[in-house]
Amino acid sequence: MTGIIRLGRIPLAPEGVKQRWPFPVGMHLVTGGAGFIGSHLVDALVARGEAVRVLDNLSSGRLEFLEGHAKDQVEIVVCDLLDQTQVRDAMRGIQVVHHLAANPDIRLGIEVTDTDLKQGTLATYNVLEAMRMAGVSNISFSSSSAVYGEAKEMPTSERYGPTLPISLYGASKLASEGLITAWAGTFGARAWIHRFANIVGPRGTHGVIYDFIHKLQRDNTRLEVLGDGRQEKSYMDVVDTVDAMLHIIDRDDGIGASLYNLGTTQTISVTDIAKIVIQATGLEDVEIHYTGGDRGWAGDVPKTWLDVEKLYSSGFVPKMDSRGAVKSCADSLVSEIGLRKPR
Amino acid sequence: MTGIIRLGRIPLAPEGVKQRWPFPVGMHLVTGGAGFIGSHLVDALVARGEAVRVLDNLSSGRLEFLEGHAKDQVEIVVCDLLDQTQVRDAMRGIQVVHHLAANPDIRLGIEVTDTDLKQGTLATYNVLEAMRMAGVSNISFSSSSAVYGEAKEMPTSERYGPTLPISLYGASKLASEGLITAWAGTFGARAWIHRFANIVGPRGTHGVIYDFIHKLQRDNTRLEVLGDGRQEKSYMDVVDTVDAMLHIIDRDDGIGASLYNLGTTQTISVTDIAKIVIQATGLEDVEIHYTGGDRGWAGDVPKTWLDVEKLYSSGFVPKMDSRGAVKSCADSLVSEIGLRKPR
Repeated sequence: MTGIIRLGRIPLAPEGVKQRWPFPVGMHLVTGGAGFIGSHLVDALVARGEAVRVLDNLSSGRLEFLEGHAKDQVEIVVCDLLDQTQVRDAMRGIQVVHHLAANPDIRLGIEVTDTDLKQGTLATYNVLEAMRMAGVSNISFSSSSAVYGEAKEMPTSERYGPTLPISLYGASKLASEGLITAWAGTFGARAWIHRFANIVGPRGTHGVIYDFIHKLQRDNTRLEVLGDGRQEKSYMDVVDTVDAMLHIIDRDDGIGASLYNLGTTQTISVTDIAKIVIQATGLEDVEIHYTGGDRGWAGDVPKTWLDVEKLYSSGFVPKMDSRGAVKSCADSLVSEIGLRKPR
Repeated sequence: MTGIIRLGRIPLAPEGVKQRWPFPVGMHLVTGGAGFIGSHLVDALVARGEAVRVLDNLSSGRLEFLEGHAKDQVEIVVCDLLDQTQVRDAMRGIQVVHHLAANPDIRLGIEVTDTDLKQGTLATYNVLEAMRMAGVSNISFSSSSAVYGEAKEMPTSERYGPTLPISLYGASKLASEGLITAWAGTFGARAWIHRFANIVGPRGTHGVIYDFIHKLQRDNTRLEVLGDGRQEKSYMDVVDTVDAMLHIIDRDDGIGASLYNLGTTQTISVTDIAKIVIQATGLEDVEIHYTGGDRGWAGDVPKTWLDVEKLYSSGFVPKMDSRGAVKSCADSLVSEIGLRKPR
């Protein structure tokens, strides 16, 4: 499915008639805007009164995540970032690009090894090149703590080096960061780079909490945990995340490149997450089974703990800590998925 | 031109007859092996008694750089790294891949923005994927100080972060590093990553010394210097460089990824290089003209000074410092190019 869906106040062009994009300069483009984090960013931008164009191939994004914007200035362009012409067309009238689209499944990279290369690195190149062609100079990018690989310093600050990702997903995020700073340095783009902790919350379409709930839906007596359960990571609530992204763009001029870790000060273990999820479902007597080993899959980092001092001292403090974010996410996904506690 | 050229003792297969590669397991593959640094690496490997396969598209590499190996175990496969099938074929019997092929002209990236993406990032992906398919697990990679961008700490150590390259060339080197460490972390490859200073010496096909000599060949009264002449960088002699690469592979097990800055302890300014080059040509009364500005072109880093403590404390000390390497290179290029001092 490829095409343009216009929601809300935007006049629909008659089929086949080429028209200029109907927005004044100042629109925001959100790639992956129908996805998990992207759709929350659209919510936040709309709440600020901004006009938004979403670019999404709907591979993991869902139109229903944007349903609430039927009356807002939100336009959805359904296309793939690998289609250069369409990406270039989508740049008209754009002031800021929020580039969030990516392959959301880190593990998929192991099986089809060019997934992250295409959906990550090449897609970012296309976005940057389309921006350059159209004279759009502001880009906010969702990178990942995966760029750090197995860091030797905890918590890991933005100044940590060398960044040696161990997953193909992390490699594509590092590659995209480099492309963005090169575009900034060579062609004058302004860039904000956000290295995300594990982001969780409503509309999640993947990740450990999502997996656990789906496993419990299939078998409510037994929960399989990949690894030994001791993997430990920073989590951040998705609403906190998009607030932090906009906070950084607001306060930081992005000249050169402004790079921040986005997360909370603590970590939480996979075993603790399993317990929180089981509690959220209301299930009793669930047996936790561990597959063993210190990581869930090849390329999984056993411990991720971000130093978020830079974010916090910029004046932003997330509303939820890791545990709170995981609990809130488990509750909302249980109710979204409709997993009910047995009565 | 595409095909296989066999030099020396290697039996030539009759036209059209498919045959197994004639080498025992243990061969070295050098991508870009007909190029400037690559051909010196071939020299060093042959001197150690190793069998070498060169893979080069001859875009900037030259067969004449390998002429001296007519009697050695050197095989040349002329093909492009973007041709996946040929790259996979070239992996048969290989023990270590030395991946040096890249677009050598940093400035070209500005005009054709996917040059480094293709010749750097995608080529590296193809190399890694071909290695995985063929079960080749050792890769030595020539990265660059360009990954550091405009580093805020001088000298810049391997632990410096974040790496924010400002050139498209630097972005492709960072992307390639990430792909390599991801392959190591996910599929178990062993990797050695070398972040090169400016490498100079005989057979140079680009770079500031090469440019200066060619400019003087066209006009022996005036030398145009891009920028204000105060750009300052670390230089390393090409023979020292390939010795350092092999030294690191010898002593470091490459598990995970072994990453080293390769350079010398000092820097030298562009103005000083201009003076050394002019002296090497024997020309007198050359007027130096500066185009102005703190950098030679968009994406040029005004100052690069690598911390080489890790290399030096591993027991390797280059034979030439920055000034010595520049002087030696100027002398050899002047005699290669045939620029004679007026009598």
